[in-house]
Amino acid sequence: MQKPTLPKGTRDFGPEQMRKRLFIFDTIRKTFQRFGFQPIETPSMENLSTLTGKYGDEGDQLLFKILNSGDFAAGLTEPDLAAGSKKITPKIAEKGLRYDLTVPFARYVVMNRNDLTMPFKRYQMQPVWRADRPQKGRYREFYQCDADVVGTDSLLCEAEIILMIHEVFRNLTIQDFTLKINNRKILAGIAEVIGVPGQEGTLSVAIDKLDKIGKQKVLDELRERGFPDDTIVKLEPLFSFDTLDANRLLDQLTNWLSESETARQGIFELNETLQLVHQYGLTDSRVEIDPTLARGLSYYTGAIFEVKANGVSIGSVSGGGRYDNLTGAFGMPGLSGVGISFGVDRIYDVMDELALFPASSGQGTQVLIVPFDREARAKALPLSSELRLAGIAAEVYPDLVKVKKMLDYANARGILFVVLIGSEEVQTGILSLKNMVTGEQHMITAEELVNRLR
Amino acid sequence: MQKPTLPKGTRDFGPEQMRKRLFIFDTIRKTFQRFGFQPIETPSMENLSTLTGKYGDEGDQLLFKILNSGDFAAGLTEPDLAAGSKKITPKIAEKGLRYDLTVPFARYVVMNRNDLTMPFKRYQMQPVWRADRPQKGRYREFYQCDADVVGTDSLLCEAEIILMIHEVFRNLTIQDFTLKINNRKILAGIAEVIGVPGQEGTLSVAIDKLDKIGKQKVLDELRERGFPDDTIVKLEPLFSFDTLDANRLLDQLTNWLSESETARQGIFELNETLQLVHQYGLTDSRVEIDPTLARGLSYYTGAIFEVKANGVSIGSVSGGGRYDNLTGAFGMPGLSGVGISFGVDRIYDVMDELALFPASSGQGTQVLIVPFDREARAKALPLSSELRLAGIAAEVYPDLVKVKKMLDYANARGILFVVLIGSEEVQTGILSLKNMVTGEQHMITAEELVNRLR
Repeated sequence: MQKPTLPKGTRDFGPEQMRKRLFIFDTIRKTFQRFGFQPIETPSMENLSTLTGKYGDEGDQLLFKILNSGDFAAGLTEPDLAAGSKKITPKIAEKGLRYDLTVPFARYVVMNRNDLTMPFKRYQMQPVWRADRPQKGRYREFYQCDADVVGTDSLLCEAEIILMIHEVFRNLTIQDFTLKINNRKILAGIAEVIGVPGQEGTLSVAIDKLDKIGKQKVLDELRERGFPDDTIVKLEPLFSFDTLDANRLLDQLTNWLSESETARQGIFELNETLQLVHQYGLTDSRVEIDPTLARGLSYYTGAIFEVKANGVSIGSVSGGGRYDNLTGAFGMPGLSGVGISFGVDRIYDVMDELALFPASSGQGTQVLIVPFDREARAKALPLSSELRLAGIAAEVYPDLVKVKKMLDYANARGILFVVLIGSEEVQTGILSLKNMVTGEQHMITAEELVNRLR
Repeated sequence: MQKPTLPKGTRDFGPEQMRKRLFIFDTIRKTFQRFGFQPIETPSMENLSTLTGKYGDEGDQLLFKILNSGDFAAGLTEPDLAAGSKKITPKIAEKGLRYDLTVPFARYVVMNRNDLTMPFKRYQMQPVWRADRPQKGRYREFYQCDADVVGTDSLLCEAEIILMIHEVFRNLTIQDFTLKINNRKILAGIAEVIGVPGQEGTLSVAIDKLDKIGKQKVLDELRERGFPDDTIVKLEPLFSFDTLDANRLLDQLTNWLSESETARQGIFELNETLQLVHQYGLTDSRVEIDPTLARGLSYYTGAIFEVKANGVSIGSVSGGGRYDNLTGAFGMPGLSGVGISFGVDRIYDVMDELALFPASSGQGTQVLIVPFDREARAKALPLSSELRLAGIAAEVYPDLVKVKKMLDYANARGILFVVLIGSEEVQTGILSLKNMVTGEQHMITAEELVNRLR
């Protein structure tokens, strides 16, 4: 018999991991809700016509496709076979697994456009699938937690996203993080001012690598990509900004990019957003303006956000930005929105590495009841009901076995308290409560037990 | 441009539905946890070698298969094409979407056998996929919520499942339900006693239809399936039991099936389980013994459970039973367990039809702040922060538009309270609170507002 295995790039989550993950999900969900975001869920499968062409050629290849049901190969011919996999795919697969939550959200908005109240604030916490090559920290199935507001271009939304990021990480007790913020219009302005208007895409791809490869190699890459030498010289100020003083940085950007109307608009938006954040009363802000932040640009047209935890070398744990044309691909142009995505897997890694999970998040059952015999069990059962009624997670060891075996179970499961019921306890009605960590044991009434554990 | 659509048999869940669904999930999860069940999650994809052959031929055909990534058709030949879809599938698809939570759980147990503490109590709440023909109430993607205990054959587990079912439905405020219970060994005993030993499977398939087609047609079917006339005559008592008096029914079964050792064991188990439930202190029990209950039998070897809500014509909302050989197909024989599965979609339908969702479960944002102008907005922002800090879901309307438009938004979103901030409120610092249902409006301080909404 073959031993069962997992498909590569996928994972099981055991109880301890799950409890920690649920703590993260719960924290994010509650924060989203407090800010008025509403939950939606979309199906795991989408028509390939919905997904294809939205993530570039590379993305299309990373889509998991679902074989049509029934006699899928009936229409396949020898010439099809000769034409190869790419040509065969659309004939045998109509559906694919969602690749992110953004495209399904766009589809949802378009299909429900007549019923949605704008501005529409939604959040969505579901797994996505990518046929990426698995490697450390990269999986083929992982969760995204997205919140977006569409149908308004108010900068209040940018400000609220900044607040929400602070609240999520503080509620997770990740105190030490940096929230970098930029604006696509500033990047566009830089491209204009140095003399390569419209080429902020190429510029960003190179600049995105600054942390990894350093300034010199970024400039080399730009040169290779056809940026004339004089444009590269003009880029110099970008590498010498003081990113720790927001006002000073905004002044420097204003001076440098004064010729560009687009840049001025971007700087205005950035400044206005930070003013609003200040009005909301955010204290101990972790916001840092970074005019090199691009996040691959993709569909961002305004604000760009990225969050990293300090003190660990784990990539970004959250990112997002404003876009102008979420639903254009589905025939509904001009819908503006701004969103943020939290990466649960990386947040988990950060919290694990920094030992930030509260003890209670790893905890399952609070108390195990250990009856020594049948008679004791008759006392154990109503006691367990009483505890559960009080909201306490309680178990009765189901088999009548040696007491040591039951205590071993409590230890292995990490159950802190054990209630021992032997003949003495049956007679007196007083219970024996044992703390499995300290070993302390003392007598207690059922009522005291409930009050203590509640 | 083509209008986007959803794959057939799949659904989007909008905010109101989602909030109600989350209420159901949350209720079930909390109950599972109180009974000491621990969360696990398994990947959506499993190797087809894990899934195939576990659900019968029909089940195999209902598996969604995932096309291999990359150049999947490279190894396909013309003879393959001629051999047809069934032969081609294993060459181009290695993975499938999970069909239920039981087989992935069995795989998990086998892969983690050395690390699990037995008895192992796990719960799992995840979607499953079936390429069934979509119809009313049947979808291709739906959630299952399962709880199982493996590694013990203690009847305490059966009793706790009965308690847990009562707690779940009562917490959902579904008060009026019937929990039918039977035991595979009683069905086996009936087959023995009427003279067709070992044929309880065929017997059950026919009897399962009793509610739908009536006694006469059930007997006709058995005759067609080769049950001799004298066996069918002997079946007569089965149709005349008084299922409302458990003790009387157990007596009648004992008399009828006295020759069968297996039946006696089944009756003992049933009786013992009910005694234990009584010891736990369950009041107003909804348990009803039904010696015809079979639930397709499949892998059940002991107790069989099924729950239906009364007063609605929606199928079973929960079902389960004991099995002896969960992991045998993966080379780990003899692992006994008992489990229960809750069907969220049907529970939703029941609660919707009976209007049982609490008002709070449909509620999102509690209060919308409506600033009349920029100056008012400067007051609105810190107020929203204060409300959120107190755990209140609050929104500020993001654009400065006409007040009527903002009130329309509150109405469309079902937000009960609106705080109006105009020039007067800015001057006095006193807020104007409007109840959108009653239309009442009165002045209130920020402090009073927080206390009132919290």
